Amino acid sequence: MSAKMSEQSRGVYIIAATPFDQDGELDLNSTDTLIDFYLEKGVSGITILGMMGEAPKLTSDESLLFMRRVMTRVNGRVPVVVGISHPAHRQVALLAKSAMSLGAAGVMLAPVANLKTEEQVVNYYLSVAALLGDDIPLCLQDFPQSTGVHCSVETILRLVEALPQLVMLKHEDLPGLRKLSQVRHQSEARGLRRISILAGNGGLFLPQEMRRGADGAMTGFAYPEMLVQMCRLFDEGRDDEAEEVFDCYLPLLRHEFQYGIGLALRKETLRRRGAIRCAALRQPGPRLDREDLLELDALISRLERRLAALNG
Amino acid sequence: MSAKMSEQSRGVYIIAATPFDQDGELDLNSTDTLIDFYLEKGVSGITILGMMGEAPKLTSDESLLFMRRVMTRVNGRVPVVVGISHPAHRQVALLAKSAMSLGAAGVMLAPVANLKTEEQVVNYYLSVAALLGDDIPLCLQDFPQSTGVHCSVETILRLVEALPQLVMLKHEDLPGLRKLSQVRHQSEARGLRRISILAGNGGLFLPQEMRRGADGAMTGFAYPEMLVQMCRLFDEGRDDEAEEVFDCYLPLLRHEFQYGIGLALRKETLRRRGAIRCAALRQPGPRLDREDLLELDALISRLERRLAALNG
Amino acid sequence: MSAKMSEQSRGVYIIAATPFDQDGELDLNSTDTLIDFYLEKGVSGITILGMMGEAPKLTSDESLLFMRRVMTRVNGRVPVVVGISHPAHRQVALLAKSAMSLGAAGVMLAPVANLKTEEQVVNYYLSVAALLGDDIPLCLQDFPQSTGVHCSVETILRLVEALPQLVMLKHEDLPGLRKLSQVRHQSEARGLRRISILAGNGGLFLPQEMRRGADGAMTGFAYPEMLVQMCRLFDEGRDDEAEEVFDCYLPLLRHEFQYGIGLALRKETLRRRGAIRCAALRQPGPRLDREDLLELDALISRLERRLAALNG
Amino acid sequence: MSAKMSEQSRGVYIIAATPFDQDGELDLNSTDTLIDFYLEKGVSGITILGMMGEAPKLTSDESLLFMRRVMTRVNGRVPVVVGISHPAHRQVALLAKSAMSLGAAGVMLAPVANLKTEEQVVNYYLSVAALLGDDIPLCLQDFPQSTGVHCSVETILRLVEALPQLVMLKHEDLPGLRKLSQVRHQSEARGLRRISILAGNGGLFLPQEMRRGADGAMTGFAYPEMLVQMCRLFDEGRDDEAEEVFDCYLPLLRHEFQYGIGLALRKETLRRRGAIRCAALRQPGPRLDREDLLELDALISRLERRLAALNG
Repeated sequence: MSAKMSEQSRGVYIIAATPFDQDGELDLNSTDTLIDFYLEKGVSGITILGMMGEAPKLTSDESLLFMRRVMTRVNGRVPVVVGISHPAHRQVALLAKSAMSLGAAGVMLAPVANLKTEEQVVNYYLSVAALLGDDIPLCLQDFPQSTGVHCSVETILRLVEALPQLVMLKHEDLPGLRKLSQVRHQSEARGLRRISILAGNGGLFLPQEMRRGADGAMTGFAYPEMLVQMCRLFDEGRDDEAEEVFDCYLPLLRHEFQYGIGLALRKETLRRRGAIRCAALRQPGPRLDREDLLELDALISRLERRLAALNG
Repeated sequence: MSAKMSEQSRGVYIIAATPFDQDGELDLNSTDTLIDFYLEKGVSGITILGMMGEAPKLTSDESLLFMRRVMTRVNGRVPVVVGISHPAHRQVALLAKSAMSLGAAGVMLAPVANLKTEEQVVNYYLSVAALLGDDIPLCLQDFPQSTGVHCSVETILRLVEALPQLVMLKHEDLPGLRKLSQVRHQSEARGLRRISILAGNGGLFLPQEMRRGADGAMTGFAYPEMLVQMCRLFDEGRDDEAEEVFDCYLPLLRHEFQYGIGLALRKETLRRRGAIRCAALRQPGPRLDREDLLELDALISRLERRLAALNG
Repeated sequence: MSAKMSEQSRGVYIIAATPFDQDGELDLNSTDTLIDFYLEKGVSGITILGMMGEAPKLTSDESLLFMRRVMTRVNGRVPVVVGISHPAHRQVALLAKSAMSLGAAGVMLAPVANLKTEEQVVNYYLSVAALLGDDIPLCLQDFPQSTGVHCSVETILRLVEALPQLVMLKHEDLPGLRKLSQVRHQSEARGLRRISILAGNGGLFLPQEMRRGADGAMTGFAYPEMLVQMCRLFDEGRDDEAEEVFDCYLPLLRHEFQYGIGLALRKETLRRRGAIRCAALRQPGPRLDREDLLELDALISRLERRLAALNG
Repeated sequence: MSAKMSEQSRGVYIIAATPFDQDGELDLNSTDTLIDFYLEKGVSGITILGMMGEAPKLTSDESLLFMRRVMTRVNGRVPVVVGISHPAHRQVALLAKSAMSLGAAGVMLAPVANLKTEEQVVNYYLSVAALLGDDIPLCLQDFPQSTGVHCSVETILRLVEALPQLVMLKHEDLPGLRKLSQVRHQSEARGLRRISILAGNGGLFLPQEMRRGADGAMTGFAYPEMLVQMCRLFDEGRDDEAEEVFDCYLPLLRHEFQYGIGLALRKETLRRRGAIRCAALRQPGPRLDREDLLELDALISRLERRLAALNG
């Protein structure tokens, strides 16, 4: 079993896709090859059952089956974070406890969709935390574009103060650059723990986020090696080179950033790269048409030409 | 097995609560007493696993268990409609097929939450219908306050034309009175089938909806006997008396209409009336405090005094 | 000039409609008769240029013209509160200062629509307050169904603490009964000023709100005399009689509660009662059709029969 | 006076900022220099009083004043399109007629925010068109992220069929690439007029949109010369070179794409380039802090180095 998620977690926690076959069944063989792909690319951790992992479309049994398969394949080589967002507390608790007993490094929780005020957000996390106990490391996913729930910096810091097990923020408010800076500045000014912040939103603002205090990325871009390289360069203080690398991939990364169809593009790219056998999303979900595929071809070819030029 | 849901379905299809015990477990004994309660009050049908039935908080197994228990208890005396709304098509299909094989009269489906255009709404229903086949009677739930998805009259009628199995509309757009009239008028003008329309939204506008062409109510008010009486009076052409009855209950009905806490009030009222043993919602969900309970006391007492005066 | 709005303000502050003629021009003669109508019915105050007053459809010049006409007609007999919500700070300030110089008792401000966090809500009010100075009494309009902006109890109390000129809350969150109680309880527990709370939302929950600590109503129901009578009965401790009166009008009040078309119904009722000459809304806005008008006829007739029976 | 907007309009219609001074007053001198800046960069047209032009924060008088100043400065050299979106029809009509009488080439209209169904969207445009008459060329702004109103391809094409004066679509649904293709394909399949489509959304997907049938861009990127060069290269069939140019600017363009603060970044960039004297937005609106400014410095420096390398 690998180490638990902690305030020191950093680098690339790739958001794993969930592979299905043409009939929409979980594809467990592709789960293995996908995990191998991510590990070969050098990721620091893997996050499964996130929103981009189509988690709400899985049954409870399927979630457990997939979780188990991933854990077995990873076999402790990197930490695995498990998404546990669900409308019912008891299902949140069940997923969390199953994940931890299978060796997960921690769990990730977004607020349920019908919370209206920040008081409600705080109470939501407190009540879930009471169910989970103090021992399960928690990542707060701040993703208002998807959940409709907004958190101020104050709310995030109140939760950091109240919950020692809250060790990570998945930062994906948009626009969110100033918010990231404020979390860092205000946390320091108040003498709070410095938690890990990993940037989401497809990585669209990753260089800026790294400079403002992110510790890495938690996103699912189909070229994880770029994210890995970037984070390493940032670690070595070679920020400009890191941004150079990022800019190379930016046209494609921006293309994947499109909400909804972006996941279909990402899975198709993973398929082309040999990571999974079938790119289909579970229905309902977008399917790529001929024009989408040709456009993706063109963007990938441009990237390859650019990389060849850069490296050649 | 009772008759299937059809264009001729009318009267009160009560939206059944899902009873839990204090620990949040499904309470199957209360399920039996609740079903008995509804049947005693004279409902024409029962709808289970709707949004107000806390369906999104149940696991797939629990849904099947609850469905089976209800079917057994009802034992064909009235039609049972089963809510099958779910983010994944395959789960929609599984729920629908399980329901029908257990003797359901039909299924109810709301659009998934991320549909943006009406073209997408139409395609959503067409693709689900393709999965379900022609034999499963379908009720379209038009509830934009909860789903965020809006349907014009045109969209509803396109679906009526395209899908012979679409036999019922659960009407709960708000405001929605004119929309109900337009569905009736335009349907007739175009020579379409006249489908069954049952009014939701807690019944807040039920007398007006009956006059505009509704065939009954599909809602969960904790005094189903009032809805039953009203619909019978409307059937007999005694509209003014029906409205008189309605007005008696309106203060309490309006109180239950409050989204969120309304369900907690409804379950508490059902508990007081002996229909279920425990009023708790599954977490997360509102809990009544002392002030809420006293307020409910007062409203129920007022209703009882009024009924006594009316009948005395 | 009448007294300013204050923490002691109570009773019925009627939300005034803005009368237009058939061509959509401001109807200043009807403005006079409408004000006379409200005063005759015994309102304690008048609120103009609210959302239901179609304020966003007026030009800046029209707002000033209407404001001036109302002030002249009221002539200090009751306090007039002026809605100043607008996307630009400078326009908010201009409206506020114009209103006060014309003799308004205070101003009412809802948060602009794009505020996402409560920190932003607090900052919004602080920045407007800095522009307005300390001398203009302020009413906070908490109406998330229209603005999309949610405030917790904590946010409201922070503003009460920070801004001495914040003397009134227009309470129209929905459901909002518990929130009202919490504002009262927590305010008292923290030793804060007790501000005036007037209930909105068409008055749909007014008896419950009065019992939970509201000081009156700020809404536009077309039978202001009922609201006035109710508030007086509550003042005299005759709560049950107050609720009796309310229940009489509830079917019609609920009918007006329909967002959007409710305003058209309200203006038509005011027209029938002789308060204004033309019921038209400025375009775009709903128009009543034959079916709507017959339905309204029936509801008004029922009310009149009921009142006759009660008083007879 | 320049030619009217038409189905043949193409190239870059820059969305003009509205310059204010430090006190929030309209800065008419900067209006002149800004217009000169845009014309020097070679834009094909100018769009004023769009959402990014802070139009909702202007009074009616200020809108007319600004409109007049722009028209005078442009003096017929390029077509000027005027945004006329407003909650009241009569204000829409007033703005449109004023604009045309001052020599505008056409007007741009987004749906008002409270339209729920596409039927309502269609009726909204039909009723406005009835007010404006047939002679005012109309651009439909499809920007659901800002308006909350969604239009399907079908709705757009119905409007193209019904309204001969509808000659342009400002395409900024997101994701929207497939929608753009479908508008082109279905329009052709049905033998409809081919309207002009200009891409918005900050230009984030401009190369893909040009390949899918856009005729140019309508956005406010602070380096209009890039957009101009790109469109020219696309016109010459040099698509790959066009995309090369685009990719150079993409990091900065993506940075401006941030909703809200993006406008503050854009105005600051325009200020640095000498186009306007003061970068301030009217309040309420975001202000750049030190960290934002340093980040912008770095992005602009990177761009300049890249351009130097490319051209050197």
